[in-house]
Amino acid sequence: MAEKNVTMDKIVNLCKSRGFVFPGSDIYGGFANTWDFGPVGVELENNIKKAWWKRFVQESPNTYGVDASILMNPRVWEASGHVASFGDPKMDCKSCKQRFRADTLIETYGKGDVIPDCMTNEEMEVYIEENNIRCPHCGNKTWTNIRKFNPMFTTSRGTLEAEADKVYLRPETCQGEYVNFLNVQRTARAKLPFAIAQIGKSFRNEITPGNFLFRTIEFEQMELQMFCKDEDSVQIYNSYKEKAWNFAKDIGLSEDKLRFHDHDKLAHYAKAACDIQYNFPIGWQELNGVHHRGTWDCSRHQEYSGKSMLYTDPVTNEKVLPTVIEYSIGVGRLTLATLCEAYEEETLENGETRVVMHFNPAIAPYKVAVLPLQKNLSEKAEEVYAKLAKEFMCDYDLAGSIGKRYRRQDEIGTPFCVTVDFDTLENDTVTIRDRDSMEQIRLPISKLVAYISEKVKF
Amino acid sequence: MAEKNVTMDKIVNLCKSRGFVFPGSDIYGGFANTWDFGPVGVELENNIKKAWWKRFVQESPNTYGVDASILMNPRVWEASGHVASFGDPKMDCKSCKQRFRADTLIETYGKGDVIPDCMTNEEMEVYIEENNIRCPHCGNKTWTNIRKFNPMFTTSRGTLEAEADKVYLRPETCQGEYVNFLNVQRTARAKLPFAIAQIGKSFRNEITPGNFLFRTIEFEQMELQMFCKDEDSVQIYNSYKEKAWNFAKDIGLSEDKLRFHDHDKLAHYAKAACDIQYNFPIGWQELNGVHHRGTWDCSRHQEYSGKSMLYTDPVTNEKVLPTVIEYSIGVGRLTLATLCEAYEEETLENGETRVVMHFNPAIAPYKVAVLPLQKNLSEKAEEVYAKLAKEFMCDYDLAGSIGKRYRRQDEIGTPFCVTVDFDTLENDTVTIRDRDSMEQIRLPISKLVAYISEKVKF
Repeated sequence: MAEKNVTMDKIVNLCKSRGFVFPGSDIYGGFANTWDFGPVGVELENNIKKAWWKRFVQESPNTYGVDASILMNPRVWEASGHVASFGDPKMDCKSCKQRFRADTLIETYGKGDVIPDCMTNEEMEVYIEENNIRCPHCGNKTWTNIRKFNPMFTTSRGTLEAEADKVYLRPETCQGEYVNFLNVQRTARAKLPFAIAQIGKSFRNEITPGNFLFRTIEFEQMELQMFCKDEDSVQIYNSYKEKAWNFAKDIGLSEDKLRFHDHDKLAHYAKAACDIQYNFPIGWQELNGVHHRGTWDCSRHQEYSGKSMLYTDPVTNEKVLPTVIEYSIGVGRLTLATLCEAYEEETLENGETRVVMHFNPAIAPYKVAVLPLQKNLSEKAEEVYAKLAKEFMCDYDLAGSIGKRYRRQDEIGTPFCVTVDFDTLENDTVTIRDRDSMEQIRLPISKLVAYISEKVKF
Repeated sequence: MAEKNVTMDKIVNLCKSRGFVFPGSDIYGGFANTWDFGPVGVELENNIKKAWWKRFVQESPNTYGVDASILMNPRVWEASGHVASFGDPKMDCKSCKQRFRADTLIETYGKGDVIPDCMTNEEMEVYIEENNIRCPHCGNKTWTNIRKFNPMFTTSRGTLEAEADKVYLRPETCQGEYVNFLNVQRTARAKLPFAIAQIGKSFRNEITPGNFLFRTIEFEQMELQMFCKDEDSVQIYNSYKEKAWNFAKDIGLSEDKLRFHDHDKLAHYAKAACDIQYNFPIGWQELNGVHHRGTWDCSRHQEYSGKSMLYTDPVTNEKVLPTVIEYSIGVGRLTLATLCEAYEEETLENGETRVVMHFNPAIAPYKVAVLPLQKNLSEKAEEVYAKLAKEFMCDYDLAGSIGKRYRRQDEIGTPFCVTVDFDTLENDTVTIRDRDSMEQIRLPISKLVAYISEKVKF
């Protein structure tokens, strides 16, 4: 009997108690909207990143990886439009001095009769006034007008303080691909269409509540920018919608919790944009995006850098400014989705409940745990551990009853438990227990690596 | 006949022309002391990180990984001492307004009769005055006194501007381990001695010339903090000196280019500290550090956070404040060292020169390249490529003579080239060429994965 019964609180608590995720700077009372991955979580996160890179770089012949700096020439953010216009519509409560997003206020406290994304600031102000939307914090209705709040973190750099110039922490990774388009094209002798991919951190001074890993001030993105001719762009856009869907499914998310969500409102330069949403415990929310960005990025960087971004077709000699299709997914969001998806409270035949994390074995933090049945078997068990640890992240646990040790491994989603018992000393065989079915089979130690390798492939 | 003939210029040029490393924000004229890893470099960098993690986390039973936030509670940097005292001794030239490090001026322009690391600010000022050390930029001798320049990047965070508080970009990753000591110990039920390991980015507002990847304002560290009882600390310190040496050797650095360098001057809390230096083209420079930090870190965080950092021995019930041994190595520096080490200009029997990067196959960016001998073999070659790309980073090259294509792979250090020829169509065999010996053998396609897998293991 399987009941998921998943709530955000349960996930957060499991994460803290089992070493997936801790509050950032925890001993100092935390630091709002930051989270640290613990010993189990860092493996989950890394496995997700490796799976994405394998699928979208290693196995994709026309995709090239980069790892660009977080600190970039400030002109990049002028070209991208972030310096001038980036920002959410914010209102302050004059009574309690708290700041809120106007569109969120309308979504949360409005009548559901409008789509704030499609409203101007003036329309939102009128709507909030006419619908008597009050401050969720103090209950008063003393709003300022809407102002833009630029969520880019700024810092300064320079050898002489007088010359210190303003520098930004990148609010998105994709600019690292645009500024490297020419270098990658030249050195890889790449032909359109080709993509540049990157996994890296970005920063936004978010003021909205984070919902655990869903929205953090520092977040990692896995994304690629596909450069193509305009005539191929719609077909490529559609192919990435499909690839994005398949990746989400293959990583372990069930299709009945995934849906496409086409954007109602497009950026002025965009031809099409859609998200894949996941049904989190907090509701349907964006998991990733596929965006048709037109020639906006290349034209802006061409204008601001003075460098030609034109691509010359080697056959026709035609010169084209590349159109960009973007596919982007957050590591934190996807990690959160896999945690929610994997969680299950299962009632066993004996009436007990076990909490089990049904991760896809390819992303499970530990692939296998070695459990000596008794303490005096630990020498043999350590031999087995040393052999397996050369190939996989491998746990070793000697403490408590075997049942308790199985439960601990279930809670961190270890797909296989290898038990070393007295027969092992006789014939070099072990039992290997499957996390999901709890069934056990007996295997020679010499076959363990091949058996597990086969099951943890992505 | 093998001549290395390696210079920094050659490495930088190869990196730019072959897609290892590009200047950051290149189309905007760069951004001082930032570099972007290109398609080939990002694989090298990732392979180095994976090898380190495998050695020091996966295969080390008492080591636990974390991935902590870059932005931390500002109290962390008060506890660490960075807010109060971090900083290099800087002097400004009053004539040309350039700023310099006093210790570097003495090292570069002094008589070599003193060790600036052991001098007070006053002693350095006197030495510079008495030895007539002039501004390297304008030649004048109009120095200010020495001042500390805090190289931490600062930014601010907060929902209301009035409340915005100062936040730092972490200048080192190790604080992420200290603030998670209690959480990791509890959730992993870890017993002393145990280590917490992390790979992540840090930031320093460096003013000294970078020497390519050697010193950058944004850099990635691979490091671990081993928490132990004081009585075990010296033995552990020595064991990490050995482990650090072996890792540097196993990653591919030759032992005659490595040496230990004990620190002449220790931080006031340190019991011992040593670097491993590598003989870069710019001379012997620090590659990694092993530091005995005493109980400084745990005592400071205990004091500043008010949380007890005492560890209770489960057998003796003795309470101890852990001593910390740190082992830290920079990803950029190690990448640079492997590039310098691998570089060779080899004169072939026919008198031609080939540039070949002799990377350890485990860290080589691409493991294998598939080269159809002629265009009409590309269908079969693509089949082979698709099979290999599921297992390895795999290049595919159809353009130019086979000799030219071998040279391109040599320059990016691909250990194996698989050539698909007309015999392949007949009997499903290919030639596989070894990068270093240039010898070729013939293998069935079905044996390629096993053959290559065996050779690229770390």
